Amino acid sequence: MSLNPKRTVAELRELQALTGDANGAQRVAWTDTWLKARDWFAGKVKDLPVEHHYDAAGNNWVTMPGQSEKALLIGGHLDSVPNGGWLDGSLNVLAGLEVLRRIADEYRGRPPVTVRLVDWADEEGARFGRSLLGSSAFAGTASTEADRVRTDRDGTRLEDALRRCGVEIDQFLEATREQKNAAAYIELHIEQGPVLERMGLPLATVLGTKGVERHMITFHGEEAHSGSTPMNARRDALAAAAKLALEIRAIAGKHPDAVSTMGSVKTFPGIVTAVVGRCEATLDQRDLDPGVLAGMFREAREASERFAQEERCSVEWSRIWNIEPIAFHPAMLDLCDEAIREVARGTHRMPSGPLHDAAEVSRAGVPTVMMFVQSVGGISHNKIEDTREEHLELAVAAFDRLASKAIRFLS
Amino acid sequence: MSLNPKRTVAELRELQALTGDANGAQRVAWTDTWLKARDWFAGKVKDLPVEHHYDAAGNNWVTMPGQSEKALLIGGHLDSVPNGGWLDGSLNVLAGLEVLRRIADEYRGRPPVTVRLVDWADEEGARFGRSLLGSSAFAGTASTEADRVRTDRDGTRLEDALRRCGVEIDQFLEATREQKNAAAYIELHIEQGPVLERMGLPLATVLGTKGVERHMITFHGEEAHSGSTPMNARRDALAAAAKLALEIRAIAGKHPDAVSTMGSVKTFPGIVTAVVGRCEATLDQRDLDPGVLAGMFREAREASERFAQEERCSVEWSRIWNIEPIAFHPAMLDLCDEAIREVARGTHRMPSGPLHDAAEVSRAGVPTVMMFVQSVGGISHNKIEDTREEHLELAVAAFDRLASKAIRFLS
Repeated sequence: MSLNPKRTVAELRELQALTGDANGAQRVAWTDTWLKARDWFAGKVKDLPVEHHYDAAGNNWVTMPGQSEKALLIGGHLDSVPNGGWLDGSLNVLAGLEVLRRIADEYRGRPPVTVRLVDWADEEGARFGRSLLGSSAFAGTASTEADRVRTDRDGTRLEDALRRCGVEIDQFLEATREQKNAAAYIELHIEQGPVLERMGLPLATVLGTKGVERHMITFHGEEAHSGSTPMNARRDALAAAAKLALEIRAIAGKHPDAVSTMGSVKTFPGIVTAVVGRCEATLDQRDLDPGVLAGMFREAREASERFAQEERCSVEWSRIWNIEPIAFHPAMLDLCDEAIREVARGTHRMPSGPLHDAAEVSRAGVPTVMMFVQSVGGISHNKIEDTREEHLELAVAAFDRLASKAIRFLS
Repeated sequence: MSLNPKRTVAELRELQALTGDANGAQRVAWTDTWLKARDWFAGKVKDLPVEHHYDAAGNNWVTMPGQSEKALLIGGHLDSVPNGGWLDGSLNVLAGLEVLRRIADEYRGRPPVTVRLVDWADEEGARFGRSLLGSSAFAGTASTEADRVRTDRDGTRLEDALRRCGVEIDQFLEATREQKNAAAYIELHIEQGPVLERMGLPLATVLGTKGVERHMITFHGEEAHSGSTPMNARRDALAAAAKLALEIRAIAGKHPDAVSTMGSVKTFPGIVTAVVGRCEATLDQRDLDPGVLAGMFREAREASERFAQEERCSVEWSRIWNIEPIAFHPAMLDLCDEAIREVARGTHRMPSGPLHDAAEVSRAGVPTVMMFVQSVGGISHNKIEDTREEHLELAVAAFDRLASKAIRFLS
């Protein structure tokens, strides 16, 4: 079969009809709907000349053995957030499936190198708050002991939910075995941001995933009556947080690709008649350059201390999570540029703000690159997430070129 | 009996022991504990030469008929917020009781004018969110139809809670009958703010209650991924709100006694990984001068629109509540100054930020003044609310002087 990008779009719609509802995609990992999606996918690969199995972390490996054991990995994830979009994660898997069909056809089932399509387990972390679960097991970076006791909204423990799906968390790190012979990794994903749409470009090469500093910042002032406390007698925790909310933008503004977000502010007691005694705010800073990221973090921290002092408050920081920036492989970036140029008029290189399984694969030392396709309105993790069909088809075509180039690169 | 301010302090402690617990005062209006406080108080007045009855709104009137029907009213409220302090409201009532005892003694039960002590029902509005309930019925400003369907946390309707205490909301406005012959009103209250402590003064004359503009302000931006949305592509509702949080302070800062508070900020979706798409903030502005208050409101509104535009957001305002400034009676202010000067070294005139029943009485056209006594640390509505005993005693003495001056003023 020759490459048929329209089939990918049709299959995406088929999956959406099967596992979505009026509120969007419902393929949350470790749920019945997710298992249903995986069964559906198993049906799609059963006529291909492939072996497939689930590894110790629940990642689904579809392997087409080649003349060499050296393997090109193509990855994605069928799981979604609740009320998610029809593309995030699934496009990657189904474009990979289409590429696999073309390769099977072109090489009569035996390509020059082994080609492996992987559907990572629980990329989103939507149920237990731990994203990149399966790919981190592959990379050997999984935090098994911390994660096993995580609970979902109903109190179900992560390890029990996994067991129900046949995954024993004690064997989790055996997934690192899948690293054997992995020689390159490619992943297609929707951008989930507005950059390509604003540039009028369908596709981009992803430079890597930005590092993230994620913190909870608490300003402590003094609760006071809004009517009886003169302005100069106040220790207003919200005022300090408001200054920081504005300052983190100025700090990020010094660097072209840096982003900095205060996504949550909580006020205590949080009533109309009281000066805010305590204010909790979250900070999420990202950049691809480790030096820039560290500098932004330091500046935000210093600013928070300055603002606390100005408002006669105190401030404490606690790290929620962080990850270093991960730069993709230079030669793979070039291949991706070339592939895009062959199907589209122009291309662009950009970092990814969101994390992806590709980051974990890259951490495992596998030469990696991702390709982005434009998102309509930059919206994702939402039922209105969308990409124009012509762009989806272009993406499948470009991704297929990338796969070909990667096979040649490894041959 | 001659005036015994130490007895007032002892009775306050007695009431606290009877109707408080480890978390503070629990005399929430229309509860059993509040009724217990009222029973206790009935026991205190039973040997005085007084008539007492509950009016149609549940206000408790203790009347000592004088040679003239013209009446001096002395008011307070036994109800408290949950986990409240031992002084807010009760000091007013028990100081009034002590003054009544002194007057009964001095005039052998028949003062030159009628003297009426009133324990207002539900000053705090703690259970149903409607403060000054009883005094607004007296003033004829009660919003009966809107209030009857208010519910408490357990879903009990205001009208049912009142009926349980013998008050029929349909008869509520019959409480205006109590206005008859009312010629002056005085009320003692703790300051509930830090001004007197900072000035080193025990007592002050209250100029009136500040008007209040209380609004909910909602900024609408666009929810976006914190990783994939460039800074210049954002419509950050929190940024607009943060600018306003700082600006309202600058606006109030132009006027010596004005206050302006953003007490609550809520962010939606309010997660660490999303730019804030919607931000709800409360605003509470107060000043004694109607022109200043109107100007502050207008400036805040204009600023919010400017900030919304800067952040490519929209903004909507909805009024939660407002009340005009209420200035107390000039001649009564002078009497209060005189009374304070007779017992303390210095005095001060200041507006009240918090509302009080005195505001409603003043709205009914009764010449009114309030006296403030210093609060330790400016803290109120809290079990640690306190006033030094020597200041409480001084306050009872000064308040008694004020009552005498008011009686002479009316004679």
